[in-house]
Amino acid sequence: MNKKLNGRQLAQTEALNMERHVKEEIPSEGQSPVADPGLSEKCSPVVIDDVPLNGPTLDGLAAEEFIHQSMAIIIEDAVKKATDVKEKVCEWRSPDQLKELLDLELRDGGESDSKILQRCRDAIRYSVKTTHPRFFNQLYAGMEPYSMVASFIAEALKPSLYTYEVAPVFTLMEDAVLRKMKELIGWEEGGDGIFNPGGSMSNMYAMNLARYNHSPDIKELGLSAVPRLVVFTSQECHYSITKAAALLGIGTKNVYVVPSDQRGKMIVSALENKIKTAKSEGAFPFMVNATAGTTVLGAFDPIEEIADICEKHNLWLHVDACWGGAALMSKKHKHLLKGIHRADSVAWNPHKMLMACLQCSAFLVRDKTNLQLCHSSRASYLFQPDKFYDISYDTGDKSLQCSRKADAFKFWLMWKALGSSQLEERVDRALAMARYLVQEIKKREGFRLLMEPEFANVCFWYIPPSLRNLPDGPELYQKLHTVAPVVKERMMKTGSMMVGYQPHRDKPNFFRMVVISPQVSRQDMDFVLDEIHSLGKDL
Amino acid sequence: MNKKLNGRQLAQTEALNMERHVKEEIPSEGQSPVADPGLSEKCSPVVIDDVPLNGPTLDGLAAEEFIHQSMAIIIEDAVKKATDVKEKVCEWRSPDQLKELLDLELRDGGESDSKILQRCRDAIRYSVKTTHPRFFNQLYAGMEPYSMVASFIAEALKPSLYTYEVAPVFTLMEDAVLRKMKELIGWEEGGDGIFNPGGSMSNMYAMNLARYNHSPDIKELGLSAVPRLVVFTSQECHYSITKAAALLGIGTKNVYVVPSDQRGKMIVSALENKIKTAKSEGAFPFMVNATAGTTVLGAFDPIEEIADICEKHNLWLHVDACWGGAALMSKKHKHLLKGIHRADSVAWNPHKMLMACLQCSAFLVRDKTNLQLCHSSRASYLFQPDKFYDISYDTGDKSLQCSRKADAFKFWLMWKALGSSQLEERVDRALAMARYLVQEIKKREGFRLLMEPEFANVCFWYIPPSLRNLPDGPELYQKLHTVAPVVKERMMKTGSMMVGYQPHRDKPNFFRMVVISPQVSRQDMDFVLDEIHSLGKDL
Repeated sequence: MNKKLNGRQLAQTEALNMERHVKEEIPSEGQSPVADPGLSEKCSPVVIDDVPLNGPTLDGLAAEEFIHQSMAIIIEDAVKKATDVKEKVCEWRSPDQLKELLDLELRDGGESDSKILQRCRDAIRYSVKTTHPRFFNQLYAGMEPYSMVASFIAEALKPSLYTYEVAPVFTLMEDAVLRKMKELIGWEEGGDGIFNPGGSMSNMYAMNLARYNHSPDIKELGLSAVPRLVVFTSQECHYSITKAAALLGIGTKNVYVVPSDQRGKMIVSALENKIKTAKSEGAFPFMVNATAGTTVLGAFDPIEEIADICEKHNLWLHVDACWGGAALMSKKHKHLLKGIHRADSVAWNPHKMLMACLQCSAFLVRDKTNLQLCHSSRASYLFQPDKFYDISYDTGDKSLQCSRKADAFKFWLMWKALGSSQLEERVDRALAMARYLVQEIKKREGFRLLMEPEFANVCFWYIPPSLRNLPDGPELYQKLHTVAPVVKERMMKTGSMMVGYQPHRDKPNFFRMVVISPQVSRQDMDFVLDEIHSLGKDL
Repeated sequence: MNKKLNGRQLAQTEALNMERHVKEEIPSEGQSPVADPGLSEKCSPVVIDDVPLNGPTLDGLAAEEFIHQSMAIIIEDAVKKATDVKEKVCEWRSPDQLKELLDLELRDGGESDSKILQRCRDAIRYSVKTTHPRFFNQLYAGMEPYSMVASFIAEALKPSLYTYEVAPVFTLMEDAVLRKMKELIGWEEGGDGIFNPGGSMSNMYAMNLARYNHSPDIKELGLSAVPRLVVFTSQECHYSITKAAALLGIGTKNVYVVPSDQRGKMIVSALENKIKTAKSEGAFPFMVNATAGTTVLGAFDPIEEIADICEKHNLWLHVDACWGGAALMSKKHKHLLKGIHRADSVAWNPHKMLMACLQCSAFLVRDKTNLQLCHSSRASYLFQPDKFYDISYDTGDKSLQCSRKADAFKFWLMWKALGSSQLEERVDRALAMARYLVQEIKKREGFRLLMEPEFANVCFWYIPPSLRNLPDGPELYQKLHTVAPVVKERMMKTGSMMVGYQPHRDKPNFFRMVVISPQVSRQDMDFVLDEIHSLGKDL
């Protein structure tokens, strides 16, 4: 691509040739024998440190051609084939095999465009198709065309959301999306917010803001002179709460883990006991994290009751609704998050059930000023006070990042296209699909539910015929524990589907199915159960 | 898009119709009058909570058609027009004007595909074209076709780099890129690393690892029982160092700011004095941040001498080479980072001078185990120990994030295409271009350099004719301070180019030019100077 020449360059070629000529033979400037004196002036050859500087060295036409060809491959392989139910979800290769297939090493010499196009095809081929209708491995899945297009636009434009002047459109779109999300939470007075690279980051923001609210001096003075701070969360919470406590210098031991009931919901009386314990130890409780939609069981902590306790003890209430926040779109299911309007902050990932492209994670806060105060550093090269526009639109100082992507746009465009009503329908359908799956599991021999699901997570065991006569007890559990990993290995190697498994507390390995995408139908649910049986019946 | 039907759906339509029929008139299952009993069995109608579950509700063909049409717009508007030097860099609108133009509100009802395509066009139209040859506003710029294509592929596939099983290709590519970067740093024993959403995040990782290295117990116990920790950095460092200290509970006051010389380089003797001061106060120094390529002046701290001091005092040496790291690609310029192989950790953003798409930020660490130990939380639903492949390829537990994007791929593909040799040429050319600009500034009346640049940052004042007779002194400085903001406003409103400005220490507002992209030629440098004069000569 650097060898061919585009239109703009062609005009410079002669000058470059001249330049070499001039440099080698007539070292005085401005004497090149060009007929048009205007051209001569514009193109007077310049070479510095042996680098010719006239004209661009990137061939725009060749670049365009390359992008065109790649786009065709992307649509064919990464969109159409990747989402085709008749194709594989993945084409499994071990790390060693894949290393050999991909020739990963980076060398001095470059490669031709056709070689690079082949590399694109290979990268797609051996990648897991997370947009495939049979991908159920994570809490995100499926292809959302509007969001995908928005992400392509953002990738092509490379905006960074520190200042309005560099990202005017996306700054305003972020604001519009956050406003609507705050409305759904029920904060009548508004609030503040920011999109982050992932829900873990949002949970960290929450902890930092809660701490700032508790004692703003910590930002300057640090924690070394401060009595021990304690945060509370359930045993079912996402691991990012612990990671945040470690990073923030609070310490993982100062995350007091509140037990959950059998359904995975925080036991509120236990929370209050833990708070009392912390106080009796001389520590300072400052935050409770409630989870709305736990990762494995899909359980919702009772927000209303937790909010009562937070009010009583003057604690920051954060709701990690990264997964369960989607229910706020649905009149039928929003009761799951009853009381969320009383939260001080909320993390909510539209890239999960609402299918915005990865990553699309909102952090929302009821207070209007502390997000900026807690994170600001007022860098003079970005946030000049003498700008000619209203600098309250420069959101960069609210963030821990410097450059920040236009993630909100990926949600805004699809929301515009679908409207709240179709987003609601999708959520309702995902939960109806989970209920269908539960019915089927109950009907089929060899399948056993962990529990009735509250949300979209359907957790179940597959019991191969050889184990069906064993009574409930340690022997069955021990043997059952080895079933899911083998079925998983087989499904990966077949490439027919991807479903996650894990152990949980005293429970041996079980499958967790999560349905998200409108590409998926109840036939796919039937397929999953048939396929698990077919892959595991000999175990 | 949800109304039309694709092939797979067509097969289900009859069943769905039947379903309604069945539901309304014949509520018994399995009695629908279908000729093929196989089809009947597969498609037996299912409705749960009033939601029909047979067949997907997303119309794949319509989605494909929409993506096709969008791609054409993206190539035409966001690639070709956006990078065309004859087009505007930006089409300025104030926040209020733009809000009206864009109709940002999100409503219950959705919009037609043709309306959404128009919204895509508008989003592109009013966005700043950071890939335009006349965009010089940040430390990133330009269009890199290979990297752009890689980012499209990643957006389409939606990989998340927690586990090998979900992102096999991109996990291995990240490993290959990190390996090569560590080689360029000169770590003969290898090391470890991870790609992060931005250099600020990498600097935070560095501080966390330095603290873990100083005292691993802090992860569990927090800082409340620990004597005050102190980190050292120059007054020219990036603001993320202070942000990291605030977030990590170290406190911004415990960032001891070491003075820099007039060129912006850390004064090493002053560093040693600060360390002694901290120790005499009873505090614990644990880390020095050296900057390789400061944000405003492009200065390089003397790494070798700083490394000597770190060794002597047993301090972690982090090098923030987010901007200057690119020089490691160049035999001619890598001397700027002499001694970097002695660093304990390095932050290096290939999305800056090396032009990988935003974001592409590597954090590299010489130690091989602590990145994981410091950040791990061993979530059982992701990092199952009973997997069927080598789980050392599951990199997710090294990260503070949960879902993490395939940023390394955007660098890997372009590196494959260009080879190290062309990356080197680009760096050399960017620095030659900066030298050309310096020569021109010296030649022209009314332009004055702040100082001879060490790297690609060219900082200069434009002095309008009305001020040229004023002697150096407060009056000139005060008046000069108001020039750059007005010129900036005018260039934004004209849309002819974007160049950043800022004050710095005692210096009034000046322009900072940074050349990165091979689309840019010395004619563009001439244009910038001509245009600044043309926009500001009446001031």
